[in-house]
Amino acid sequence: MNQFRVLIEADDAKGIVHKVSGVFYNHDLNILSNNEFVDKENNKFFMRSVVEGNVNLSDLKNSIDNVLDVSSTINVIEPKKKNIILMVTKEIHALGDILIRHEAGELEANILAVVSNYNDLEGIVSKFNIPYFTISHEGLQREEHENKIIECIDGFDDVDYIVLAKYMRILTPKFVETYEDKILNIHHSFLPAFIGANPYKQAFERGVKIIGATAHFVNNNLDEGPIISQEVISIDHAYSWRDMQRSGRDVEKVVLSRALKLALEDRIFVYANKTIIF
Amino acid sequence: MNQFRVLIEADDAKGIVHKVSGVFYNHDLNILSNNEFVDKENNKFFMRSVVEGNVNLSDLKNSIDNVLDVSSTINVIEPKKKNIILMVTKEIHALGDILIRHEAGELEANILAVVSNYNDLEGIVSKFNIPYFTISHEGLQREEHENKIIECIDGFDDVDYIVLAKYMRILTPKFVETYEDKILNIHHSFLPAFIGANPYKQAFERGVKIIGATAHFVNNNLDEGPIISQEVISIDHAYSWRDMQRSGRDVEKVVLSRALKLALEDRIFVYANKTIIF
Amino acid sequence: MNQFRVLIEADDAKGIVHKVSGVFYNHDLNILSNNEFVDKENNKFFMRSVVEGNVNLSDLKNSIDNVLDVSSTINVIEPKKKNIILMVTKEIHALGDILIRHEAGELEANILAVVSNYNDLEGIVSKFNIPYFTISHEGLQREEHENKIIECIDGFDDVDYIVLAKYMRILTPKFVETYEDKILNIHHSFLPAFIGANPYKQAFERGVKIIGATAHFVNNNLDEGPIISQEVISIDHAYSWRDMQRSGRDVEKVVLSRALKLALEDRIFVYANKTIIF
Amino acid sequence: MNQFRVLIEADDAKGIVHKVSGVFYNHDLNILSNNEFVDKENNKFFMRSVVEGNVNLSDLKNSIDNVLDVSSTINVIEPKKKNIILMVTKEIHALGDILIRHEAGELEANILAVVSNYNDLEGIVSKFNIPYFTISHEGLQREEHENKIIECIDGFDDVDYIVLAKYMRILTPKFVETYEDKILNIHHSFLPAFIGANPYKQAFERGVKIIGATAHFVNNNLDEGPIISQEVISIDHAYSWRDMQRSGRDVEKVVLSRALKLALEDRIFVYANKTIIF
Repeated sequence: MNQFRVLIEADDAKGIVHKVSGVFYNHDLNILSNNEFVDKENNKFFMRSVVEGNVNLSDLKNSIDNVLDVSSTINVIEPKKKNIILMVTKEIHALGDILIRHEAGELEANILAVVSNYNDLEGIVSKFNIPYFTISHEGLQREEHENKIIECIDGFDDVDYIVLAKYMRILTPKFVETYEDKILNIHHSFLPAFIGANPYKQAFERGVKIIGATAHFVNNNLDEGPIISQEVISIDHAYSWRDMQRSGRDVEKVVLSRALKLALEDRIFVYANKTIIF
Repeated sequence: MNQFRVLIEADDAKGIVHKVSGVFYNHDLNILSNNEFVDKENNKFFMRSVVEGNVNLSDLKNSIDNVLDVSSTINVIEPKKKNIILMVTKEIHALGDILIRHEAGELEANILAVVSNYNDLEGIVSKFNIPYFTISHEGLQREEHENKIIECIDGFDDVDYIVLAKYMRILTPKFVETYEDKILNIHHSFLPAFIGANPYKQAFERGVKIIGATAHFVNNNLDEGPIISQEVISIDHAYSWRDMQRSGRDVEKVVLSRALKLALEDRIFVYANKTIIF
Repeated sequence: MNQFRVLIEADDAKGIVHKVSGVFYNHDLNILSNNEFVDKENNKFFMRSVVEGNVNLSDLKNSIDNVLDVSSTINVIEPKKKNIILMVTKEIHALGDILIRHEAGELEANILAVVSNYNDLEGIVSKFNIPYFTISHEGLQREEHENKIIECIDGFDDVDYIVLAKYMRILTPKFVETYEDKILNIHHSFLPAFIGANPYKQAFERGVKIIGATAHFVNNNLDEGPIISQEVISIDHAYSWRDMQRSGRDVEKVVLSRALKLALEDRIFVYANKTIIF
Repeated sequence: MNQFRVLIEADDAKGIVHKVSGVFYNHDLNILSNNEFVDKENNKFFMRSVVEGNVNLSDLKNSIDNVLDVSSTINVIEPKKKNIILMVTKEIHALGDILIRHEAGELEANILAVVSNYNDLEGIVSKFNIPYFTISHEGLQREEHENKIIECIDGFDDVDYIVLAKYMRILTPKFVETYEDKILNIHHSFLPAFIGANPYKQAFERGVKIIGATAHFVNNNLDEGPIISQEVISIDHAYSWRDMQRSGRDVEKVVLSRALKLALEDRIFVYANKTIIF
């Protein structure tokens, strides 16, 4: 018995569910879970099914292809570990959380490498026998620096996701385009509040009573990519911005790991700069 | 164009989604939303679809009947206001929240009456031109008292739900059976913690750091019916049980109103003393 | 026995707590609660004590005056109902929540009047025997309109707070200055995200996964006054902006009522466009 | 300049704050923070101050001793790293979270050792150069097993706290008494709901809509010690108990680490089986 995740994005029309579920029925597949959503504004249909049975991937994909409109996007995915590369700067909490989950076998992922512009975290990473590449930005133009990172990443085959686990440098459009829809970031604020540098200081200045974190895909506008997950915690007047930062870390790491899990399980559609998550 | 809510509970089997969506397709219906869930433990399939088109209720129901197994439960419902009766004792907050929502036209419900064992809330209810019945329990056996309430309720036609908006007396099995699956209650604790009387005092004694409220259907075991909705708030050592009670009211009213909304929109399946909510 | 709330704002210095608690001790007062905070950035000390005993207000105030630096601000307040005026436009939920709490005797406030630019809510308000003033803005310059409102408000003595319970018009600096530090507003977003008009639509466009509400004092910059209270709820891709608006209302009303309660209990200090809340 | 945490527990009486703050004033100390609470039910006064200045610990303690009633408990503590021992069974998440925080220098603690009844986690612990002791319970009476653990723990000097980071065996009264008020536990439910074994299965059976975790001190009644911290997450009908367990882990680890931080910073008073936390 094989298991498949079937992801469909199509122009909304009557009968899609009937046709696709007909394919499942004809192949004698068990539907383990099934989710649908129609974006009425854009007339778009999204569906994610997990099915099980005796069929191979290409037969299943072909059968679905045959019943759906040519404009549809159909992904049939066999669950397996995805390859990820982590990028970090100096903070350990988000990285550490992923390392521990990886160690626990909780992530459907192989961590191919950790790339950083500093060597501060090499010690912790090497404990886990994961390659660590320090690629300093000092003395380099932004693009030169990124080219070195790209070269490093491209030394690995089949990188599914690049996870910015508190990588504190802004990426150029070129870098983002190179890995379109593949870069996850954690921003340490409740977006769209406090875009940009030092959001905790901004939050302190504004005197907010709740702070948060946002995991999102990266696009070319800083902190404006499609949001995957957000979480908040309450604070009060007694919090300095350092206190906010400290407390915020617990939110950041949980939100990033949650978003990563959703990505690894192929639960996210990106459309119109938003996410549909099943 | 008519709109229908289709609720199906069936033994799980391959092809149900295909067959039901086939009925929708053949009747040229738009699927506005569609949710499914399989309870693997009990091998039960649950589905709620909202569809729109030119079909009448009995034709749609018959068509679904024809494609599904005889053991299936099929409900096809035309959205309209349901009839509810509220039961209260002396506290205003949960009742008041429902009255304001009702006034705002936010609830798909007609409030037929408010029944209480005290007359304390008659003033506020009569402002809204809703009949108020004081049926005192004093000097009466429990069953005598309830018989009077049943008589009062049965004076109204087509009562869909009885909402215990802080009705502080325990109901007998007879009463509960009379209105099986029709009674919603708000319990002022995070069930199953603090079952029974004065949960805030119990919470105070135990020194918990979070308190909550639980909306549930009522069955014959006190506070053990199927849970519909729960919510919590953080507290600290400075809260007396009176403070907990005061703060808890905001949770209670929101949770009860949320549960009532789910019931009125036919979003709740009850199975094996649990709820499936779409 | 009298009860007093003592609020002190002073330049931070050694010995303030000792001196003030000495006054309490010398007057043989019970300290029911005591909170302090030092804003290190601005070197400001804040203290709120609730004390009980046989002393009159002016004696207590004089005694504290005598021990503190002349630059200190000392408020000694006898707990009693404050006078508030509500301003609304067309939405009932925040107003209704306050009316029900008022009816329940839960608020330390007399609602003197409700002022609106529409008459939509006159029905509900008059049920509660509270004067309702419709002051239409149609055909009037903004300042003319506000002058009429000011005239109406000034017809009442001793207005402690003006509560904007979803009053949907922007106030001029003149209006705000007239009632400095006396105007509470509920903004239907998690500030500083989505300042300005229709925040739910903005939230929908941005694809956030959490929405919220913010109660704040009003100053001359729209939605930039000192924040009193914030709360959020989780949403997902299936929420239209109308759904967000509907769900958001439950947050708005709870947050506004909570902020109002804090103000009525003299628990809020405003300093440097932030609040310190005890 | 020295910094001290001053913790006072006393029978409530007029003048305590005045007297203690007088000591601080006379020693020319800066008060960095100050919190008080009166437990009216038990007539108990609690105070935690952080002060800074040129005084030594015993002088400060003596001065406070001199002004307070003999029944008072006075602790003057110089902030420094506390010594902790972790006890685990097979699950990595709570342990891993503490290890990463320890590595980040975020905890005011030295981890002296990890003790387990299995060797599963030896690999991860040894990466961090922390001694790991496998003390199997197999073939041993409960008391024999615990004696071996006690022997192991007593091999270390000055153990401040024993942290049960998912240690899945019930401790005997003897063990608990040996380390009275020194054992922190994380229970994987929102206590007092679901005491005992497999709370997630219990939660699944009951059909709750929220699950949680509770950090508490251990006393002789299983899961009934003083609660330090609690947190919850929302779930729905689609969660199997395995899903609850997986999601619950994120709550467990955050709650335990938060409670540990509070203990390490001397922020917790235990009284009448409850905690007062400043």
